[in-house]
Amino acid sequence: MAERLVVVGGDAGGMAAAAQARRMRPDLTDLEIIGFERGGRTSFAACGIPYRVAGLVAELDDLVARSPEEHRRRGIDIRVHHDVRAIDLDERTVEVVDLASGRILVEPFDQLLIGTGARPIRPDLPGIESEFVHGVQNLDDAEDLLAHAEDAGCRRVVVVGGGYIGLEMAEAFLMWGAHVTVVEAAGEVMRTLDCDMGALVRQAMQNHGIDVRTGVTVEGFEPGRVLTDHGPIDADLVVLGIGVQPNSELADEAGIKLGVRNSIVVDRRQRTSAEGVWAAGDCCQSIHLVSQQPVHVALGTVANRQARVAGINIGGGYASFPGVIGSAVTKLCATEIGRTGLTDAEAKAAAFDPVSAVIESKTRAGYYPDAAPIHVKVVVERGTGRVLGGQIVGGPGSAKRIDVIAVAITSGMTADELASTDLSYAPPFSPVWDPVLLAAREAAKLA
Amino acid sequence: MAERLVVVGGDAGGMAAAAQARRMRPDLTDLEIIGFERGGRTSFAACGIPYRVAGLVAELDDLVARSPEEHRRRGIDIRVHHDVRAIDLDERTVEVVDLASGRILVEPFDQLLIGTGARPIRPDLPGIESEFVHGVQNLDDAEDLLAHAEDAGCRRVVVVGGGYIGLEMAEAFLMWGAHVTVVEAAGEVMRTLDCDMGALVRQAMQNHGIDVRTGVTVEGFEPGRVLTDHGPIDADLVVLGIGVQPNSELADEAGIKLGVRNSIVVDRRQRTSAEGVWAAGDCCQSIHLVSQQPVHVALGTVANRQARVAGINIGGGYASFPGVIGSAVTKLCATEIGRTGLTDAEAKAAAFDPVSAVIESKTRAGYYPDAAPIHVKVVVERGTGRVLGGQIVGGPGSAKRIDVIAVAITSGMTADELASTDLSYAPPFSPVWDPVLLAAREAAKLA
Repeated sequence: MAERLVVVGGDAGGMAAAAQARRMRPDLTDLEIIGFERGGRTSFAACGIPYRVAGLVAELDDLVARSPEEHRRRGIDIRVHHDVRAIDLDERTVEVVDLASGRILVEPFDQLLIGTGARPIRPDLPGIESEFVHGVQNLDDAEDLLAHAEDAGCRRVVVVGGGYIGLEMAEAFLMWGAHVTVVEAAGEVMRTLDCDMGALVRQAMQNHGIDVRTGVTVEGFEPGRVLTDHGPIDADLVVLGIGVQPNSELADEAGIKLGVRNSIVVDRRQRTSAEGVWAAGDCCQSIHLVSQQPVHVALGTVANRQARVAGINIGGGYASFPGVIGSAVTKLCATEIGRTGLTDAEAKAAAFDPVSAVIESKTRAGYYPDAAPIHVKVVVERGTGRVLGGQIVGGPGSAKRIDVIAVAITSGMTADELASTDLSYAPPFSPVWDPVLLAAREAAKLA
Repeated sequence: MAERLVVVGGDAGGMAAAAQARRMRPDLTDLEIIGFERGGRTSFAACGIPYRVAGLVAELDDLVARSPEEHRRRGIDIRVHHDVRAIDLDERTVEVVDLASGRILVEPFDQLLIGTGARPIRPDLPGIESEFVHGVQNLDDAEDLLAHAEDAGCRRVVVVGGGYIGLEMAEAFLMWGAHVTVVEAAGEVMRTLDCDMGALVRQAMQNHGIDVRTGVTVEGFEPGRVLTDHGPIDADLVVLGIGVQPNSELADEAGIKLGVRNSIVVDRRQRTSAEGVWAAGDCCQSIHLVSQQPVHVALGTVANRQARVAGINIGGGYASFPGVIGSAVTKLCATEIGRTGLTDAEAKAAAFDPVSAVIESKTRAGYYPDAAPIHVKVVVERGTGRVLGGQIVGGPGSAKRIDVIAVAITSGMTADELASTDLSYAPPFSPVWDPVLLAAREAAKLA
């Protein structure tokens, strides 16, 4: 009889793992794969939602990388609108509700993969359940948001939270011609950057016409307005961008161990604390390669990489997930933002003694058209000069330069070694000294 | 009495070294710096010439990073239109002709820095000295070329050589609306790439309307036409882009040791074979970090890095030049090209047993507007999986990704390690799996 793999969740964590396991064990009589997804779609790019809202993508379904039908054709029996309610580790079954009929199924498994993802944090505030307050995590959320935005006309949009989602949704509604207010409880936007770099992002937001309110705490929602500790703000629509929390209740209730921020603890092969139960994606914990501490990073890259590792292992191969270094990029109109490794503040929190340098340069040769300002910050360990992190804010062509620092961190380079690396140059792409090299050189001097 | 540093050449190799030495020894009574430049300008960006020709840069002088006056204000007594004709190592003097007056000066030195650069190769062909045949290495060349181009109207331009300069000059004259023919003696353009990647560049050239003639050898020039072994080609103007050769005759005649392609041999501190004589920039030899063989790489990045090392050492500090890996980028309209490390062919020539993978992906998430095709090739050593080189051809946002591979090579990463590096992702910048990661993963499988 075939071994039976049950997959909970139809997005990257679940489906990429299932697809990888299937590639390694293509014989259906050897491995049966059955998946359950609460929503109606599979393998969708949640990261693309802001661009659909912005009107840059025609249809929500354009964000679907692989539909349920395509998964089924590839030997993965995925059932949408099926909600897994419980895992019984002793009986090795899951209890599933068919949301269409209300019927309850009990499905046995030999191996179980949990890819339940994450959901936007909705703080317990008065009015948070109002129709005009939207979290955005899956395509159904996005559909609601779009419908509401079209109905409401959306002249006044309030985004709660000045992080990635906040920035991307703010950009999206700027493209609607809306008046956009971003409310951030902290003293500066983009808390994944140090404050000096966050300030550059805030200036860019303001230059693009966004009303940025830092140090302002949202206290509730009333029809047509957001209540804050600095008075009310009028709003036709509110988007929550204050982070996500892992959907780990199912695992927790089954007795599977949780870690940081209630994310599911996994080992380097993506095994949970329960025998034969795997997890991948936004519901999981990761290890940060620089701080060596557990973290919860809900990003599509991490989800896909973890899923691939889980799938190879379930498929009978060997793969290990080396960890994350927190690389991320985003943009706000013409302003690009990148970060990797530890910020100065994070490095201190991880007991490093960091020093850092920030340089301002240009994205291209100064004489080349559209050379734009770029700021690069490099954080290094005092004494050793080892690169711990990098942050970039600048014009077009800035953000992906962060990958150079990501590789340097991963390979344990010192700032001096990075500064003398033979990076490429041509006037349309860089000054002779690439801004990353300049920042590394300055940081090396301080180490 | 002050020590006296004489610098031969007013571009990057000479002036960046002089400026660095001056920063370290600012006291004029401790170090006197005198420089001689044959032309009329100093510290100019020769790499910018094609963009001046294209009309993207308003004035040739916009390409001057630091004028003679600025150098003088910073304590470097640079004299333009002064040609150093001989070096006497025994007497420790240089013989200089003041080109304006014809007067000959004999100038003593304690330390000598040779930054004589390189010049376009002009093969000994009939008619090569015709007025309509241009090499492009300094701003005076560019001035001649522009004057001629304006006079000639430039409907038909022939570029000899399908490398970086050839590509960039072809792009420049496309912007004039000229009919551009590129003649390349080899079987494929871009010989610094493997043929499979070069073919992608050729296709892009052809798509942009360039008449590409590969396997065609130029045999001479007659008024209004270029003679080849495949018949004549009409031309109002010809640009030579068949590489450069080091200006090393001065050093050679003084008995200083030359190496690869007659470039000046230097040690890791940029010292030549003669005591107290340094060299930096396009006239110098470098060591390739991957092949461990001497090479001649005439690029602005290398020149500036070598000059900085020479300047620190002359200034009494310690710095060493770690070598090159041959990173380079360029573009042709919307097609970007990058390369680093060894090609498959170069790896074989360096006695490696290489394997390589080429992938095709997109520059952005597939659903994001203007996602363009990108091809990435990763070359690895069989057995160890060590990354030896990379090549990229693709749409906007492609070229600078080569720097990720450059850092991986420099730090000795394997393709597997590169493939599992946490690179950044957001839909406007990359698919979830960055194309570089995909290529590394495929190469790792073959190793």
